Amino acid sequence: MTTKLYDTLGIGNAIVDVLSHVSDDFIAAQKLGKGTMTLVDEARSKQLYSLIGPATECSGGSVANTMAGIASLGGKGAFIGKVADDQLGKIFAHDLQSVGVRYHSKPAPGAQPSTANCLVLVTPDAQRTMATYIGACALLSENDIDEPLIAQARTVYIEGYLWNEAHNKAAIRKAISLARGYGAQVAFTLSDTFCVNTHRDEFLSLVQNDLDLLFANEAEIKALTGAMDAEEAITAARGLCPTVAITMSEKGSVVVTNEHTFRAPAKPVAKLVDTTGAGDLFAAGFLHAKAEGKSLLECAELGNRCAGEIIQQMGARAMKPLKALVA
Amino acid sequence: MTTKLYDTLGIGNAIVDVLSHVSDDFIAAQKLGKGTMTLVDEARSKQLYSLIGPATECSGGSVANTMAGIASLGGKGAFIGKVADDQLGKIFAHDLQSVGVRYHSKPAPGAQPSTANCLVLVTPDAQRTMATYIGACALLSENDIDEPLIAQARTVYIEGYLWNEAHNKAAIRKAISLARGYGAQVAFTLSDTFCVNTHRDEFLSLVQNDLDLLFANEAEIKALTGAMDAEEAITAARGLCPTVAITMSEKGSVVVTNEHTFRAPAKPVAKLVDTTGAGDLFAAGFLHAKAEGKSLLECAELGNRCAGEIIQQMGARAMKPLKALVA
Repeated sequence: MTTKLYDTLGIGNAIVDVLSHVSDDFIAAQKLGKGTMTLVDEARSKQLYSLIGPATECSGGSVANTMAGIASLGGKGAFIGKVADDQLGKIFAHDLQSVGVRYHSKPAPGAQPSTANCLVLVTPDAQRTMATYIGACALLSENDIDEPLIAQARTVYIEGYLWNEAHNKAAIRKAISLARGYGAQVAFTLSDTFCVNTHRDEFLSLVQNDLDLLFANEAEIKALTGAMDAEEAITAARGLCPTVAITMSEKGSVVVTNEHTFRAPAKPVAKLVDTTGAGDLFAAGFLHAKAEGKSLLECAELGNRCAGEIIQQMGARAMKPLKALVA
Repeated sequence: MTTKLYDTLGIGNAIVDVLSHVSDDFIAAQKLGKGTMTLVDEARSKQLYSLIGPATECSGGSVANTMAGIASLGGKGAFIGKVADDQLGKIFAHDLQSVGVRYHSKPAPGAQPSTANCLVLVTPDAQRTMATYIGACALLSENDIDEPLIAQARTVYIEGYLWNEAHNKAAIRKAISLARGYGAQVAFTLSDTFCVNTHRDEFLSLVQNDLDLLFANEAEIKALTGAMDAEEAITAARGLCPTVAITMSEKGSVVVTNEHTFRAPAKPVAKLVDTTGAGDLFAAGFLHAKAEGKSLLECAELGNRCAGEIIQQMGARAMKPLKALVA
């Protein structure tokens, strides 16, 4: 095997999170689906922002969070995603580059549409509800899929959220086709149940034909397979693609292959603060352990540890290096 | 007494903080004075930013932090300070307005100079070292001093940091003169030892002639008075102006009037996370209690409680409402 520069190349939305505490009543009054992600336009994003209290800004984006996690664990990663030429775009780039992720996607020219933002509304139960204005991310196109970068990646990891934009879809298709050509593994996250429900047939075809590794949480895998409960979903996941990693919150995670089911229970968490990024950091731990040649069970266990760490702080980017979690 | 709309009108720098963890070695290698604030130009700010790890953005500014604290305690406040017409400026305004502070200062036109930022570098001992690019704040001028606002304020609270810019100084002079005319109390914070050392004679004249209430920490009051230790500084502070409130970290705070010295010991803190904003939030508690007609000792005690709260989180804006601290 030739040596490649990057363990993982992530492709996803380039988003700055706007974290704020809100009440359950606020989520209900604004008709946001608690615990889910809603896409909003710029006007609605601004309106919601005007209604929430003081916030903290922190770089986000699901696969970008995973890539930051991999770098924090000591892995080598790169990222492709679209920001605007504005202050938040510079913040997003800084936070990824400074943790050691190669990130040189060309910003969209000008400040409109702006860099994407995600209002992450954290309720007293530490659950997060998200409203995302996709902004410049919608402009990610085939031109942004950097062939030399894919040639240097052992795994290409793609965000399901991207499926919401036609431009993005073409970019993903190109990335998958190049990844195949260069012998890279293709990993994908279902991202969100709304995402799955909207693109179910396309997702199923993608999973069955193009993927080596699928990440999903319990709700997403149920939505994809039509399963009614967790065990049924695990059964239905078998054979969908070579490896399916399913996160199940406090129950831990399950890895399903054609022949086996590996279960990795989660350790209890000292203080649950904010569940933002739990799935993203699970993927970071899993992908990093995999790149290090660990067993699937060990991959799930490191994934659990990373997820357990991130839910004890605000935001989805680890405030302290994750390296200590690598046993 | 006529009823005024605002307990406190704050005038200070409008800054977005960029919070990041660094090592002591980094502070030393960059020749930053540990625990102090250094003014840097845009190029140096960008260079330092390129060298630090992932960061979190959070609205800051010393007196602005105080005003956010007062609002969080349930007090009525307004703020005057200058941002640019850019994304960080909008974030600054949102975070102040959304907590209930009246803030309608006109942004400087255009995006250059940008909204001020402060790199808040937190070392493992929870101490913070700051590098501030003052940006649009330098443009705060007499035109920004809104006379009707001052007419509606019971206390005008001014930031010593403003003394670094000539434009700002003229603005402060106007604010003090108007405050006097409308019968408002004038409060001032020395802000930083470097600030005091640079402007010692002007600060002394200001304190002795124009102030009703002075806030300082131990180092700052020593710098102002030339005292060699804390007790000598307390003695030297007497008579400087009617009330001097001195914060002394884990020792708590001391209020010095012409006749008396009130000492308010600090309660031990469960977990010290980041000392950013300790002085700002002390001022918030003190000013709020004062507006509520409390005794000077009670003012110092609420100040201590607010400071004790803010050092148990990252950043100088309270993540949870401070109202619970009002006994």
